[in-house]
Amino acid sequence: MTPKADSRPHVVIVGAGFGGLACARALGGKPVKVTIVDRRNYHLFVPLLYQVATAALSPADIARPIRRILGRFANIEVVLGTVTGIDTVTRRVRLAGGTELTYDKLVVATGSDYSYFGHPEWAECAPGLRSLEDARRIRARLLTAFERAEVSRDPARQAALMTTVIVGGGPTGVEMAGAVAELARHALARDFQHIDPRRAKIVLIEAGPRILSGFPEKLSDYAKAALERLGVTVITNEAVESIDAKGVVVAGRRIDAGTVIWGAGIKASPAGGWLGAALDRAGRVPLDPDLSVKGVADVYALGDIASTPDENGTPLPALAQVAAQQGYHLGRALAANLQDGRPLPPFKFHNRGNTAIIGRHAAVFDFGWTQLKGRFAWLMWAIIHVYLLVGFDNRLRVTLQWVWAYMTYERGARLIMSDFES
Amino acid sequence: MTPKADSRPHVVIVGAGFGGLACARALGGKPVKVTIVDRRNYHLFVPLLYQVATAALSPADIARPIRRILGRFANIEVVLGTVTGIDTVTRRVRLAGGTELTYDKLVVATGSDYSYFGHPEWAECAPGLRSLEDARRIRARLLTAFERAEVSRDPARQAALMTTVIVGGGPTGVEMAGAVAELARHALARDFQHIDPRRAKIVLIEAGPRILSGFPEKLSDYAKAALERLGVTVITNEAVESIDAKGVVVAGRRIDAGTVIWGAGIKASPAGGWLGAALDRAGRVPLDPDLSVKGVADVYALGDIASTPDENGTPLPALAQVAAQQGYHLGRALAANLQDGRPLPPFKFHNRGNTAIIGRHAAVFDFGWTQLKGRFAWLMWAIIHVYLLVGFDNRLRVTLQWVWAYMTYERGARLIMSDFES
Repeated sequence: MTPKADSRPHVVIVGAGFGGLACARALGGKPVKVTIVDRRNYHLFVPLLYQVATAALSPADIARPIRRILGRFANIEVVLGTVTGIDTVTRRVRLAGGTELTYDKLVVATGSDYSYFGHPEWAECAPGLRSLEDARRIRARLLTAFERAEVSRDPARQAALMTTVIVGGGPTGVEMAGAVAELARHALARDFQHIDPRRAKIVLIEAGPRILSGFPEKLSDYAKAALERLGVTVITNEAVESIDAKGVVVAGRRIDAGTVIWGAGIKASPAGGWLGAALDRAGRVPLDPDLSVKGVADVYALGDIASTPDENGTPLPALAQVAAQQGYHLGRALAANLQDGRPLPPFKFHNRGNTAIIGRHAAVFDFGWTQLKGRFAWLMWAIIHVYLLVGFDNRLRVTLQWVWAYMTYERGARLIMSDFES
Repeated sequence: MTPKADSRPHVVIVGAGFGGLACARALGGKPVKVTIVDRRNYHLFVPLLYQVATAALSPADIARPIRRILGRFANIEVVLGTVTGIDTVTRRVRLAGGTELTYDKLVVATGSDYSYFGHPEWAECAPGLRSLEDARRIRARLLTAFERAEVSRDPARQAALMTTVIVGGGPTGVEMAGAVAELARHALARDFQHIDPRRAKIVLIEAGPRILSGFPEKLSDYAKAALERLGVTVITNEAVESIDAKGVVVAGRRIDAGTVIWGAGIKASPAGGWLGAALDRAGRVPLDPDLSVKGVADVYALGDIASTPDENGTPLPALAQVAAQQGYHLGRALAANLQDGRPLPPFKFHNRGNTAIIGRHAAVFDFGWTQLKGRFAWLMWAIIHVYLLVGFDNRLRVTLQWVWAYMTYERGARLIMSDFES
């Protein structure tokens, strides 16, 4: 991809997650040529991925073509491609297939992956929840486990198949545990003849002393109690020692499980390594306050791949709102810089509220200066998430589906696709 | 799966398509034990599959868990399993994994597959459209072809990638051609910078003298004209000679294409071979007028796998409405027979109208005694298809999506999932 003969400065953005997309939008319509590269053709609304994994929503409900989102900006080109390397000296981004993009300014927003803490072999038995493929895989495993329990005549095997273990008590783990519990207790409850899905066992394992460790302690306690009301067994202070196709071992004790889901830790995407900057222990790129990569000219990073200290020096958490705010800030700053030569102002994070949801009736919200929990928090969560969903038709469809699901406990997307039957 | 000690007669139904499902429903609540086996956990509304393949609908919109549909009948057991053999002497159905079902009455409703006329190697290059996996695969190929055209700088390769060839001018081929044309001309039209998707080429190839050969000639002519108005090139009287990853050869002429879709012929599912009955040339099971398999006691067949002559002796076409009517008829007949020993009455088909749709504005309807075409036929088609969709929430969602898509030409499900990237 050779850029057209074009005097406009060229900003290349790698990654169309919350950060990259916000950056591109802020540059939309400005006298700057923008190319945004992603290996997917869609932007994924990751906070609702757990609803695809538990059959409440369809993939297309939470994904939207990047071309469609950015199509109204004539100065933005969308490229479907996988970045294989970055040369910060010659200012080139290499894509699989051999094409190269030259940049004047580069924004790296490639996000994070799950980290299996030195046990990559666990990935096969305990998929994480980062992509639509992951979500469909987990959905197929969950539903297949109940189907197998139905035809088994061995009570021990039935009980094992009806056990779901979720590793990691962060927001994803908590949300998955609540959603799996409700899937089993309600949507599946009356559909089988030989098993009672309401007796399904859901175990949430957290190695630290409490779940939702990023939240104030009283919200952790509330979330634990809310999960237990849904029938989830919450284990804290115990680390998973091994995972195989039949279950997990935790604190020397074996738990047989039909489905194991990983949500225990993340690591920065490998793109940071290509920049030649010294990475921190979690593989993140260290940034200056204006989001430029330390020691590398004209390269910026944002979101989960980067480490941005807040005013107290602690790194900002890996959250969608951090990435989105950084993207918006950087896009505006770059536009001003490229137009008028203005220096880039430092980024400042505004906490819009950190949230986790527990089933259909409870959520926790932490705004820093105040906290919310319970049904009202749930309603607020639902309204905010529908509002943030990209695309008007998605919002309408998802709202309709939620209202329907709320009234009936029905799950519309209970499909086991054969390519994930195992 | 040993049947419970149970004095009720046991009806086993293999296949939960339109026929098997209608049969199970007709037996619901009767003093009969019913087991329905399918290798999928969902019933698929195949007539709308082309809309998933062209990104208008999501898989879950046209699929519904079999357990959910039949869950209200306590006498029906749903088994997710693959039938590997049938023994009509000991009256057993064998499932993969070793379980066996014994039956008093067996209903075989396993449908049909695409036939590649002795060229199974074409299947990889030219997927048919029979399953959700097929639909997602075709969707990914179509969308990926445009993405590749966008990054290519070779005009010949761009033109090839933007060419879609559809083999077979039956209803599926006609519907796919119209839907692909509209996807390219409208939904994708403004989303690219280096290609103009409106210049995409769609070629429909039919070996016979006219498309929609199952319809009266004037409807074929209308459909051809309607497709040509959408920009589809319709080729008749020419057979495809070869298919490879780069395109097709038809009548000695090569057509390079980014996507090739097969819709040219069907063959009965292999289950017919297990019954020990003499099959017809198309592999279909010959039936007596009461839908019992000729010469095999207590075994029935219906839908695409069977050959049922109409009053003139011509076999009924492989249509959803034939299968559904047969299923309903057989279910009621078996219930009466098993309760009171009443003999099974002969099946009689009532033509409810054969239909095909061409894009957003045109459809054809053939009721035998009268024909319809144009916008009114399209509206009728839409109302009937939404009405027939299983599940109230699906109907609502699909209606909403269609109204939205009709107003905006938007396609919500434009996702390329990585497992189908090629």
